[in-house]
Amino acid sequence: MTYVVVARYRTKEGEENTVLPLLDTMAAASREEPGNLAYRVHQGTEDPRAIVLYEEYASEADFTAHCATPHFQEIVLGRVVPLLESRDVLRCAPRPEAVA
Amino acid sequence: MTYVVVARYRTKEGEENTVLPLLDTMAAASREEPGNLAYRVHQGTEDPRAIVLYEEYASEADFTAHCATPHFQEIVLGRVVPLLESRDVLRCAPRPEAVA
Repeated sequence: MTYVVVARYRTKEGEENTVLPLLDTMAAASREEPGNLAYRVHQGTEDPRAIVLYEEYASEADFTAHCATPHFQEIVLGRVVPLLESRDVLRCAPRPEAVA
Repeated sequence: MTYVVVARYRTKEGEENTVLPLLDTMAAASREEPGNLAYRVHQGTEDPRAIVLYEEYASEADFTAHCATPHFQEIVLGRVVPLLESRDVLRCAPRPEAVA
């Protein structure tokens, strides 16, 4: 079973144009990690300050390793989180995909 | 540009085991729609009542068509929503994926 993390951010006013390129860099670096299966950044269509990160890892241990990487520490914790109004991270398991 | 919808639900107490199989059926039917690119159901690992739907459509019009389908009307609106404590739906656009 893979391990999915869905993070919902809302940036402080006017900060989305600083945060989004940082997350693009973060996404590219994260996709290079051996245990990463997906890392997608999304911007709200109705609320441009709303951001969703959809991340998938081969295991929970791979997510733990992700959180210890220099790019997570420097970009997410160091530069993005101070520019956020809210941050919510849900750890979850994808359901097996049945066929209709 | 594709059109992504991230829905976050929290079921009423004890209803997750009724809601999740309904969403599995919904997911299978939705993946058969011509404009659907992805429909994944996730259950929170720390909070089993937390559910995330990650849906991707070729266009916003395909999502609009999705909302008019019998399976959306009957399963989501008719059977799932009454069993939810909270429901939040974010419409968003995925960012282009840069390479590290």
